[in-house]
Amino acid sequence: MHVIADLNVIPLGVGVSVSSYVAACERVIREAGLEHQLHAYGTNIEGEWDAVTAVVKRCHEVLHEMGAPRVNTSLKLGTRTDREQTMADRISKVEGLLRE
Amino acid sequence: MHVIADLNVIPLGVGVSVSSYVAACERVIREAGLEHQLHAYGTNIEGEWDAVTAVVKRCHEVLHEMGAPRVNTSLKLGTRTDREQTMADRISKVEGLLRE
Amino acid sequence: MHVIADLNVIPLGVGVSVSSYVAACERVIREAGLEHQLHAYGTNIEGEWDAVTAVVKRCHEVLHEMGAPRVNTSLKLGTRTDREQTMADRISKVEGLLRE
Amino acid sequence: MHVIADLNVIPLGVGVSVSSYVAACERVIREAGLEHQLHAYGTNIEGEWDAVTAVVKRCHEVLHEMGAPRVNTSLKLGTRTDREQTMADRISKVEGLLRE
Repeated sequence: MHVIADLNVIPLGVGVSVSSYVAACERVIREAGLEHQLHAYGTNIEGEWDAVTAVVKRCHEVLHEMGAPRVNTSLKLGTRTDREQTMADRISKVEGLLRE
Repeated sequence: MHVIADLNVIPLGVGVSVSSYVAACERVIREAGLEHQLHAYGTNIEGEWDAVTAVVKRCHEVLHEMGAPRVNTSLKLGTRTDREQTMADRISKVEGLLRE
Repeated sequence: MHVIADLNVIPLGVGVSVSSYVAACERVIREAGLEHQLHAYGTNIEGEWDAVTAVVKRCHEVLHEMGAPRVNTSLKLGTRTDREQTMADRISKVEGLLRE
Repeated sequence: MHVIADLNVIPLGVGVSVSSYVAACERVIREAGLEHQLHAYGTNIEGEWDAVTAVVKRCHEVLHEMGAPRVNTSLKLGTRTDREQTMADRISKVEGLLRE
Protein backbone atom coordinates (compact mmCIF):
# COMPACT_ATOMS: atom_id res chain seq x y z
CA MET A 1 0.00 0.00 0.00
CA HIS A 2 1.54 3.26 -1.22
CA VAL A 3 1.20 6.26 1.10
CA ILE A 4 1.83 9.99 0.97
CA ALA A 5 2.64 11.20 4.47
CA ASP A 6 3.35 14.42 6.30
CA LEU A 7 5.52 14.16 9.40
CA ASN A 8 6.06 16.72 12.15
CA VAL A 9 8.16 15.54 15.09
CA ILE A 10 8.58 17.65 18.23
CA PRO A 11 10.93 16.71 21.08
CA LEU A 12 9.91 17.93 24.56
CA GLY A 13 12.18 18.61 27.51
CA VAL A 14 15.19 19.67 25.42
CA GLY A 15 14.75 23.44 25.40
CA VAL A 16 13.37 25.83 22.85
CA SER A 17 15.55 25.02 19.84
CA VAL A 18 14.57 21.79 18.19
CA SER A 19 16.26 22.10 14.77
CA SER A 20 19.06 19.62 15.56
CA TYR A 21 16.38 17.03 16.34
CA VAL A 22 14.49 17.81 13.16
CA ALA A 23 17.76 17.42 11.22
CA ALA A 24 18.41 14.04 12.89
CA CYS A 25 14.99 12.86 11.80
CA GLU A 26 15.65 14.14 8.26
CA ARG A 27 18.78 11.97 8.20
CA VAL A 28 16.69 8.94 9.18
CA ILE A 29 14.35 9.63 6.26
CA ARG A 30 17.27 10.08 3.83
CA GLU A 31 18.95 6.87 4.97
CA ALA A 32 15.71 4.99 4.35
CA GLY A 33 15.88 6.12 0.73
CA LEU A 34 12.35 7.49 0.74
CA GLU A 35 11.20 10.33 -1.49
CA HIS A 36 10.76 13.33 0.79
CA GLN A 37 10.55 17.11 0.92
CA LEU A 38 11.19 19.32 3.94
CA HIS A 39 8.82 22.25 4.44
CA ALA A 40 8.45 24.90 7.14
CA TYR A 41 6.18 22.75 9.34
CA GLY A 42 7.26 19.19 8.68
CA THR A 43 8.33 16.83 5.94
CA ASN A 44 6.35 15.19 3.13
CA ILE A 45 7.33 11.54 2.69
CA GLU A 46 6.23 9.03 0.06
CA GLY A 47 6.65 5.27 -0.14
CA GLU A 48 5.33 1.91 0.94
CA TRP A 49 3.29 2.03 4.17
CA ASP A 50 5.63 -0.13 6.25
CA ALA A 51 8.74 1.76 5.12
CA VAL A 52 7.14 5.09 6.03
CA THR A 53 5.92 4.06 9.48
CA ALA A 54 9.30 2.38 10.17
CA VAL A 55 10.96 5.75 9.55
CA VAL A 56 8.65 7.47 12.03
CA LYS A 57 9.43 4.85 14.67
CA ARG A 58 13.17 5.22 14.03
CA CYS A 59 12.85 9.02 14.42
CA HIS A 60 11.35 8.54 17.89
CA GLU A 61 14.12 6.09 18.84
CA VAL A 62 16.88 8.42 17.57
CA LEU A 63 15.46 11.48 19.33
CA HIS A 64 15.18 9.56 22.61
CA GLU A 65 18.81 8.40 22.13
CA MET A 66 19.80 12.06 21.66
CA GLY A 67 18.32 12.78 25.08
CA ALA A 68 14.75 13.88 24.43
CA PRO A 69 12.59 12.44 27.26
CA ARG A 70 9.40 13.00 25.29
CA VAL A 71 8.74 12.96 21.57
CA ASN A 72 5.44 14.05 20.03
CA THR A 73 4.61 13.31 16.40
CA SER A 74 1.83 14.62 14.24
CA LEU A 75 1.52 12.40 11.18
CA LYS A 76 -0.82 12.51 8.19
CA LEU A 77 -1.23 9.42 6.04
CA GLY A 78 -3.05 9.37 2.71
CA THR A 79 -3.77 6.25 0.65
CA ARG A 80 -5.88 5.83 -2.47
CA THR A 81 -6.93 2.85 -4.56
CA ASP A 82 -8.52 4.64 -7.52
CA ARG A 83 -5.22 5.63 -9.13
CA GLU A 84 -1.54 6.25 -8.53
CA GLN A 85 -0.52 9.69 -7.35
CA THR A 86 2.84 11.10 -6.27
CA MET A 87 3.59 14.09 -4.05
CA ALA A 88 4.67 15.99 -7.18
CA ASP A 89 1.35 15.13 -8.89
CA ARG A 90 -0.59 16.66 -6.03
CA ILE A 91 1.28 19.96 -6.18
CA SER A 92 1.31 20.26 -9.98
CA LYS A 93 -2.44 19.59 -10.20
CA VAL A 94 -3.28 22.41 -7.78
CA GLU A 95 -0.73 24.76 -9.39
CA GLY A 96 -2.23 23.98 -12.81
CA LEU A 97 -5.69 24.97 -11.54
CA LEU A 98 -4.27 28.19 -10.10
CA ARG A 99 -2.86 29.18 -13.50
CA GLU A 100 -6.23 28.83 -15.23
CA MET B 1 8.31 1.38 22.89
CA HIS B 2 4.99 2.29 24.50
CA VAL B 3 2.93 4.94 22.73
CA ILE B 4 -0.18 7.01 23.40
CA ALA B 5 -1.84 7.81 20.09
CA ASP B 6 -4.77 9.78 18.74
CA LEU B 7 -6.30 8.54 15.52
CA ASN B 8 -8.70 10.33 13.17
CA VAL B 9 -9.51 8.48 9.95
CA ILE B 10 -11.52 10.12 7.15
CA PRO B 11 -12.69 8.26 4.04
CA LEU B 12 -13.09 10.37 0.89
CA GLY B 13 -15.34 9.69 -2.06
CA VAL B 14 -18.04 7.92 -0.03
CA GLY B 15 -20.42 10.80 0.59
CA VAL B 16 -21.01 13.00 3.59
CA SER B 17 -21.75 10.40 6.28
CA VAL B 18 -18.64 8.64 7.48
CA SER B 19 -19.81 7.09 10.76
CA SER B 20 -20.04 3.53 9.40
CA TYR B 21 -16.38 3.82 8.40
CA VAL B 22 -15.41 5.19 11.79
CA ALA B 23 -17.26 2.28 13.41
CA ALA B 24 -15.41 -0.22 11.19
CA CYS B 25 -12.11 1.26 12.31
CA GLU B 26 -13.24 1.08 15.95
CA ARG B 27 -13.87 -2.64 15.46
CA VAL B 28 -10.32 -3.04 14.15
CA ILE B 29 -8.97 -1.37 17.29
CA ARG B 30 -11.16 -3.54 19.56
CA GLU B 31 -10.11 -6.74 17.81
CA ALA B 32 -6.47 -5.79 18.33
CA GLY B 33 -7.14 -5.72 22.08
CA LEU B 34 -5.68 -2.26 22.52
CA GLU B 35 -6.75 0.14 25.24
CA HIS B 36 -8.76 2.87 23.50
CA GLN B 37 -11.33 5.61 24.00
CA LEU B 38 -13.56 7.11 21.33
CA HIS B 39 -14.04 10.89 21.46
CA ALA B 40 -15.86 13.39 19.25
CA TYR B 41 -12.91 13.91 16.89
CA GLY B 42 -11.05 10.60 16.90
CA THR B 43 -9.91 7.80 19.17
CA ASN B 44 -7.19 7.66 21.79
CA ILE B 45 -5.22 4.41 21.59
CA GLU B 46 -2.49 3.06 23.85
CA GLY B 47 -0.06 0.19 23.40
CA GLU B 48 3.18 -0.99 21.91
CA TRP B 49 4.29 1.06 18.88
CA ASP B 50 4.08 -1.77 16.34
CA ALA B 51 0.63 -2.86 17.53
CA VAL B 52 -0.72 0.68 17.29
CA THR B 53 0.65 1.40 13.80
CA ALA B 54 -0.56 -2.04 12.63
CA VAL B 55 -4.08 -1.05 13.65
CA VAL B 56 -3.87 2.17 11.65
CA LYS B 57 -2.71 0.25 8.57
CA ARG B 58 -5.52 -2.26 9.02
CA CYS B 59 -8.06 0.60 9.25
CA HIS B 60 -6.90 1.89 5.86
CA GLU B 61 -7.14 -1.60 4.36
CA VAL B 62 -10.63 -2.20 5.78
CA LEU B 63 -11.95 1.18 4.63
CA HIS B 64 -10.62 0.59 1.12
CA GLU B 65 -12.26 -2.86 1.16
CA MET B 66 -15.54 -1.15 2.15
CA GLY B 67 -15.26 0.93 -1.02
CA ALA B 68 -13.54 4.13 0.03
CA PRO B 69 -11.19 5.14 -2.82
CA ARG B 70 -9.25 7.51 -0.58
CA VAL B 71 -8.49 7.35 3.11
CA ASN B 72 -6.88 10.21 5.01
CA THR B 73 -5.54 9.73 8.53
CA SER B 74 -4.40 12.27 11.06
CA LEU B 75 -2.38 10.49 13.75
CA LYS B 76 -0.63 11.77 16.86
CA LEU B 77 2.00 9.62 18.53
CA GLY B 78 3.54 10.37 21.92
CA THR B 79 6.41 8.43 23.50
CA ARG B 80 8.40 9.13 26.66
CA THR B 81 11.40 7.54 28.31
CA ASP B 82 11.41 9.43 31.62
CA ARG B 83 8.53 7.49 33.14
CA GLU B 84 5.49 5.37 32.39
CA GLN B 85 2.24 7.17 31.72
CA THR B 86 -1.17 5.90 30.65
CA MET B 87 -3.99 7.73 28.88
CA ALA B 88 -5.89 7.76 32.19
CA ASP B 89 -2.85 9.29 33.97
CA ARG B 90 -2.79 12.17 31.52
CA ILE B 91 -6.43 13.05 32.06
CA SER B 92 -6.41 12.64 35.85
CA LYS B 93 -3.31 14.83 36.22
CA VAL B 94 -4.91 17.73 34.34
CA GLU B 95 -8.25 17.24 36.14
CA GLY B 96 -6.41 17.24 39.46
CA LEU B 97 -4.81 20.59 38.63
CA LEU B 98 -8.20 21.99 37.62
CA ARG B 99 -9.65 21.11 41.04
CA GLU B 100 -6.93 23.03 42.92
CA MET C 1 -20.73 29.04 11.45
CA HIS C 2 -20.86 26.28 14.06
CA VAL C 3 -17.67 24.22 14.47
CA ILE C 4 -16.58 21.06 16.25
CA ALA C 5 -12.89 21.35 17.07
CA ASP C 6 -10.10 19.31 18.59
CA LEU C 7 -7.32 21.24 20.29
CA ASN C 8 -3.88 20.00 21.35
CA VAL C 9 -1.55 22.69 22.70
CA ILE C 10 2.11 21.95 23.47
CA PRO C 11 4.44 24.45 25.14
CA LEU C 12 8.16 24.12 24.25
CA GLY C 13 11.11 25.18 26.32
CA VAL C 14 9.43 24.58 29.67
CA GLY C 15 10.66 21.09 30.46
CA VAL C 16 9.08 17.70 30.16
CA SER C 17 5.92 18.18 32.23
CA VAL C 18 3.30 20.21 30.43
CA SER C 19 0.15 19.41 32.45
CA SER C 20 0.03 22.79 34.24
CA TYR C 21 -0.02 24.45 30.81
CA VAL C 22 -2.74 22.12 29.58
CA ALA C 23 -4.76 22.94 32.71
CA ALA C 24 -4.31 26.69 32.10
CA CYS C 25 -5.66 26.27 28.59
CA GLU C 26 -8.60 24.24 29.95
CA ARG C 27 -9.42 27.18 32.23
CA VAL C 28 -9.45 29.49 29.21
CA ILE C 29 -11.95 27.19 27.49
CA ARG C 30 -14.14 26.97 30.60
CA GLU C 31 -14.16 30.75 31.07
CA ALA C 32 -15.29 31.15 27.46
CA GLY C 33 -18.35 29.04 28.32
CA LEU C 34 -17.82 26.68 25.40
CA GLU C 35 -18.97 23.07 25.42
CA HIS C 36 -15.81 20.97 25.76
CA GLN C 37 -14.46 17.58 26.73
CA LEU C 38 -10.89 16.79 27.77
CA HIS C 39 -9.40 13.54 26.42
CA ALA C 40 -5.98 11.93 26.64
CA TYR C 41 -4.55 13.80 23.64
CA GLY C 42 -6.37 17.12 23.60
CA THR C 43 -9.77 18.69 24.10
CA ASN C 44 -12.92 18.60 21.97
CA ILE C 45 -14.56 22.03 21.76
CA GLU C 46 -17.83 23.07 20.19
CA GLY C 47 -19.26 26.49 19.38
CA GLU C 48 -19.32 29.41 16.99
CA TRP C 49 -16.20 29.65 14.81
CA ASP C 50 -14.99 33.00 16.16
CA ALA C 51 -15.50 31.96 19.79
CA VAL C 52 -13.51 28.76 19.25
CA THR C 53 -10.56 30.38 17.46
CA ALA C 54 -10.54 33.20 20.06
CA VAL C 55 -10.05 30.55 22.75
CA VAL C 56 -7.10 29.05 20.88
CA LYS C 57 -5.46 32.46 20.55
CA ARG C 58 -6.04 33.17 24.26
CA CYS C 59 -4.40 29.81 25.12
CA HIS C 60 -1.26 30.84 23.22
CA GLU C 61 -1.22 34.23 24.98
CA VAL C 62 -1.71 32.68 28.44
CA LEU C 63 1.00 30.04 27.91
CA HIS C 64 3.46 32.68 26.74
CA GLU C 65 2.57 34.77 29.83
CA MET C 66 3.29 31.67 31.96
CA GLY C 67 6.80 31.65 30.49
CA ALA C 68 6.61 29.28 27.53
CA PRO C 69 8.84 30.76 24.79
CA ARG C 70 7.24 28.58 22.13
CA VAL C 71 3.71 27.21 21.83
CA ASN C 72 2.69 24.69 19.20
CA THR C 73 -0.96 23.90 18.51
CA SER C 74 -2.53 21.14 16.50
CA LEU C 75 -6.14 22.04 15.79
CA LYS C 76 -8.87 20.23 13.88
CA LEU C 77 -11.93 22.17 12.73
CA GLY C 78 -15.04 20.56 11.27
CA THR C 79 -18.00 22.45 9.81
CA ARG C 80 -21.06 21.17 7.97
CA THR C 81 -23.99 22.80 6.23
CA ASP C 82 -26.16 19.73 5.58
CA ARG C 83 -27.43 19.43 9.13
CA GLU C 84 -26.73 20.27 12.76
CA GLN C 85 -24.48 17.91 14.71
CA THR C 86 -23.08 18.11 18.22
CA MET C 87 -20.01 16.39 19.68
CA ALA C 88 -22.36 14.08 21.59
CA ASP C 89 -24.21 13.20 18.34
CA ARG C 90 -20.95 12.11 16.72
CA ILE C 91 -20.04 9.76 19.54
CA SER C 92 -23.52 8.30 20.01
CA LYS C 93 -23.88 7.59 16.29
CA VAL C 94 -20.66 5.56 16.16
CA GLU C 95 -21.47 3.80 19.44
CA GLY C 96 -24.91 2.93 18.10
CA LEU C 97 -23.34 1.30 15.04
CA LEU C 98 -20.95 -0.65 17.28
CA ARG C 99 -23.85 -2.15 19.23
CA GLU C 100 -25.55 -3.46 16.09
CA MET D 1 1.16 37.77 17.64
CA HIS D 2 3.04 36.41 14.64
CA VAL D 3 2.27 32.79 13.70
CA ILE D 4 3.66 30.15 11.36
CA ALA D 5 0.82 27.83 10.34
CA ASP D 6 0.25 24.69 8.33
CA LEU D 7 -3.18 24.28 6.79
CA ASN D 8 -4.75 21.15 5.31
CA VAL D 9 -8.39 21.51 4.25
CA ILE D 10 -10.44 18.51 3.12
CA PRO D 11 -13.98 18.80 1.71
CA LEU D 12 -16.25 15.78 2.29
CA GLY D 13 -19.22 14.71 0.22
CA VAL D 14 -17.85 16.05 -3.08
CA GLY D 15 -16.26 12.92 -4.49
CA VAL D 16 -12.70 11.71 -4.60
CA SER D 17 -10.99 14.62 -6.37
CA VAL D 18 -10.51 17.59 -4.09
CA SER D 19 -7.88 19.63 -6.00
CA SER D 20 -10.34 22.29 -7.22
CA TYR D 21 -11.26 22.92 -3.57
CA VAL D 22 -7.63 23.09 -2.53
CA ALA D 23 -7.01 25.57 -5.35
CA ALA D 24 -9.96 27.71 -4.20
CA CYS D 25 -8.49 27.83 -0.70
CA GLU D 26 -5.09 28.77 -2.17
CA ARG D 27 -6.76 31.73 -3.89
CA VAL D 28 -8.21 32.83 -0.55
CA ILE D 29 -4.71 32.78 0.96
CA ARG D 30 -3.24 34.72 -2.01
CA GLU D 31 -5.96 37.37 -1.86
CA ALA D 32 -5.21 37.88 1.84
CA GLY D 33 -1.65 38.77 0.87
CA LEU D 34 -0.13 36.32 3.33
CA GLU D 35 3.26 34.68 2.81
CA HIS D 36 2.56 31.05 1.94
CA GLN D 37 3.97 27.93 0.34
CA LEU D 38 1.98 25.00 -1.04
CA HIS D 39 3.37 21.51 -0.34
CA ALA D 40 2.12 18.01 -1.06
CA TYR D 41 -0.01 17.78 2.11
CA GLY D 42 -1.10 21.33 2.81
CA THR D 43 0.09 24.91 2.79
CA ASN D 44 2.49 26.76 5.09
CA ILE D 45 1.19 30.24 5.95
CA GLU D 46 2.82 33.04 7.89
CA GLY D 47 1.42 36.28 9.30
CA GLU D 48 -0.46 37.90 12.13
CA TRP D 49 -2.66 35.50 14.11
CA ASP D 50 -6.00 37.13 13.23
CA ALA D 51 -5.14 37.35 9.53
CA VAL D 52 -4.19 33.66 9.42
CA THR D 53 -7.28 32.37 11.24
CA ALA D 54 -9.49 34.68 9.12
CA VAL D 55 -8.11 32.96 6.02
CA VAL D 56 -8.96 29.53 7.42
CA LYS D 57 -12.52 30.63 8.19
CA ARG D 58 -12.87 32.11 4.69
CA CYS D 59 -11.66 28.79 3.18
CA HIS D 60 -14.46 26.94 5.01
CA GLU D 61 -17.04 29.49 3.81
CA VAL D 62 -15.82 29.33 0.19
CA LEU D 63 -15.76 25.52 0.12
CA HIS D 64 -19.30 25.37 1.52
CA GLU D 65 -20.38 27.92 -1.13
CA MET D 66 -18.81 25.63 -3.77
CA GLY D 67 -21.12 22.87 -2.57
CA ALA D 68 -19.11 20.92 -0.03
CA PRO D 69 -21.53 19.89 2.76
CA ARG D 70 -18.66 19.14 5.16
CA VAL D 71 -15.23 20.68 5.48
CA ASN D 72 -12.53 19.29 7.72
CA THR D 73 -9.38 21.27 8.53
CA SER D 74 -6.18 20.18 10.17
CA LEU D 75 -4.28 23.26 11.27
CA LYS D 76 -0.94 23.70 13.04
CA LEU D 77 -0.14 27.01 14.69
CA GLY D 78 3.29 27.91 16.08
CA THR D 79 4.09 31.09 18.02
CA ARG D 80 7.25 32.12 19.83
CA THR D 81 8.23 35.05 22.02
CA ASP D 82 11.98 34.42 22.32
CA ARG D 83 12.82 35.66 18.83
CA GLU D 84 11.49 36.33 15.35
CA GLN D 85 11.50 33.43 12.93
CA THR D 86 10.14 33.12 9.39
CA MET D 87 9.14 29.98 7.48
CA ALA D 88 12.31 30.39 5.39
CA ASP D 89 14.43 30.60 8.58
CA ARG D 90 13.05 27.28 9.79
CA ILE D 91 13.93 25.47 6.57
CA SER D 92 17.37 27.04 6.11
CA LYS D 93 18.37 26.23 9.69
CA VAL D 94 17.59 22.52 9.27
CA GLU D 95 19.18 22.42 5.81
CA GLY D 96 22.30 24.08 7.23
CA LEU D 97 22.57 21.37 9.89
CA LEU D 98 22.13 18.68 7.21
CA ARG D 99 25.11 20.06 5.25
CA GLU D 100 27.46 19.86 8.26
